[in-house]
Amino acid sequence: MKDFNIKSTSSASMKEKLSQKINTRTKPLGSLGVLEKLALQIGLIQNTLNPTINKHTMLIFAGDHGLADEGVSAFPKEVTAQMVFNFLNGGAAINVFAKQNGWDLKIIDAGVDYDFENIPNLINKKIGNGTKSILRESAMTSEECQKAIDAGAELAKAEFDAGSNTIAFGEMGIANTSSASLIMSRILDLPIENCTGRGTGLNDEKLNYKIDILTKALNKHPEINAPLDILRTFGGFEIAMTVGAALKAAELGMLIIVDGFIISSAILLASEINKTILDYCVFAHLSDEFAHASMLEYLGAQPLLNLNMRLGEGSGAAVALPIIQSAVNFLTQMASFEDAAVTEGNK
Amino acid sequence: MKDFNIKSTSSASMKEKLSQKINTRTKPLGSLGVLEKLALQIGLIQNTLNPTINKHTMLIFAGDHGLADEGVSAFPKEVTAQMVFNFLNGGAAINVFAKQNGWDLKIIDAGVDYDFENIPNLINKKIGNGTKSILRESAMTSEECQKAIDAGAELAKAEFDAGSNTIAFGEMGIANTSSASLIMSRILDLPIENCTGRGTGLNDEKLNYKIDILTKALNKHPEINAPLDILRTFGGFEIAMTVGAALKAAELGMLIIVDGFIISSAILLASEINKTILDYCVFAHLSDEFAHASMLEYLGAQPLLNLNMRLGEGSGAAVALPIIQSAVNFLTQMASFEDAAVTEGNK
Repeated sequence: MKDFNIKSTSSASMKEKLSQKINTRTKPLGSLGVLEKLALQIGLIQNTLNPTINKHTMLIFAGDHGLADEGVSAFPKEVTAQMVFNFLNGGAAINVFAKQNGWDLKIIDAGVDYDFENIPNLINKKIGNGTKSILRESAMTSEECQKAIDAGAELAKAEFDAGSNTIAFGEMGIANTSSASLIMSRILDLPIENCTGRGTGLNDEKLNYKIDILTKALNKHPEINAPLDILRTFGGFEIAMTVGAALKAAELGMLIIVDGFIISSAILLASEINKTILDYCVFAHLSDEFAHASMLEYLGAQPLLNLNMRLGEGSGAAVALPIIQSAVNFLTQMASFEDAAVTEGNK
Repeated sequence: MKDFNIKSTSSASMKEKLSQKINTRTKPLGSLGVLEKLALQIGLIQNTLNPTINKHTMLIFAGDHGLADEGVSAFPKEVTAQMVFNFLNGGAAINVFAKQNGWDLKIIDAGVDYDFENIPNLINKKIGNGTKSILRESAMTSEECQKAIDAGAELAKAEFDAGSNTIAFGEMGIANTSSASLIMSRILDLPIENCTGRGTGLNDEKLNYKIDILTKALNKHPEINAPLDILRTFGGFEIAMTVGAALKAAELGMLIIVDGFIISSAILLASEINKTILDYCVFAHLSDEFAHASMLEYLGAQPLLNLNMRLGEGSGAAVALPIIQSAVNFLTQMASFEDAAVTEGNK
């Protein structure tokens, strides 16, 4: 794989200048809490005292999974394509939240097992008609995996070229929590039951069945440990495309707003390839999917929201945007103590 | 006091209809978590399957406290008036967040110790030039307290009449965390040190001093236990006005978005007067002010956000609005499984 050249954002002098600006706004020191940390991070990413959120774009990658045929999800495989149509028709949660918060929403066929032909507004980057069943072989070939990474990178670059400085990713793919759990288990070297949740809503019996299947999948591929091998073997086309898009976005200096469990698994993989990507990531929310908390802990990430959401589609990232915008706005729009002639408090 | 006639929102048939609508949107059952609870609550408040947020208004009540002269705050008393000017000039955090999220912001002089004369855009409801020092006497007289409650109720009614169905309250008043702590201590029957935090940013020494002062204040008024007596004795004009505005807003069926520690103390008082007000309250955030968590627990409240904010001014409520709007939007704008021809999952 071509290397991604991601620059660290830790400039000591810019950090000092940003902290100074944050601390002289008319508010008690530190009283905006997490918003102050966000303002600092985004100022560092953009290397400016006056950061902005420009043309924030949400790329939704859809792909099918061979593993869906093994009954690891509460929904049948055909729902992936049905939900793509729902996205295109504006009826899904992500459409509602994207519209509310001004996201430019793009739907990408990364590898759905359905022939969409030429549907307007659906971006065709199909790698294949779904991945292979991980129980029997690798989910994808090395070539397919690289093609997906390249396609993601290309899409992120196109958004950057069109003026976007902020990007998020969503996903649709029945059975893709299984891929995310397998990726997590292998990278964190944790037992699969510590990495596996109920996905779209499994009961106890089906959760146990899912864990059995995933255990078999891991046992089928014992020697797979390098990040790209893990991605190729256990991932999905939508996850591989997210990995490529996220790495390219960070290389381009874009702010990345990370959604829930599945997108976080892509960021986990990306961070194994290049740790510096994490400088560019804001983690939108803690998903209700069981293993997300320990995945975020491993990444050293503090999620902004904790609303017990577990929908995917990028919905957590879409909903969190106004909080991030508030951080940028207080930094760039509030008066200083001096400007407003307000007496400063004791430190 | 004239009674407030607040109607319970718990209609079993509307609850069933709303749950049915929530559960048939194209998403895994329950996957929008807290947003689903919010959608249900707001639907019940408005008694409709298609709730809306109309003309959301933020009333900021400013008032001074006699106790400020005792050195219980990191900021001097004059900052209250200075911050009122900052609000009027658009330079404070609440201005920024209100502008971002479309709040109609109104600034009310509830009793600042400053003669503003006739300043445009400042609503004059001044009860007095600050409250009396609680160390020596009641913060206000019964008449002043009632006048403040009435003024608040009148302001809420005016917003309702102008078409608003959603209201929030902010406050400015140096030393008003002290009032909130005293109110909490007396109502919850908790030691004052369990109710007292660092406010705008006290160090350990000054926090201990604040606790000493508040202990003396409580000891000075041992027999004060009825809600209105607690309000009159330990409150502030801005807190009393919030109590009246909140009770009236609930009577009028408005959604109330509750800010942090000080506004929550007003809601605590209001709920002692009429418990049903809580049906109408969404608690925007958990403040970083130490005692807010146990106050919310007492109220049975689940805060939406936890961003370590402790600024007051209504800033937490202002920032949280888009999350609440997301709840309304998914309920009213998402497609159903049937409409979108998406296969439902196993239950």
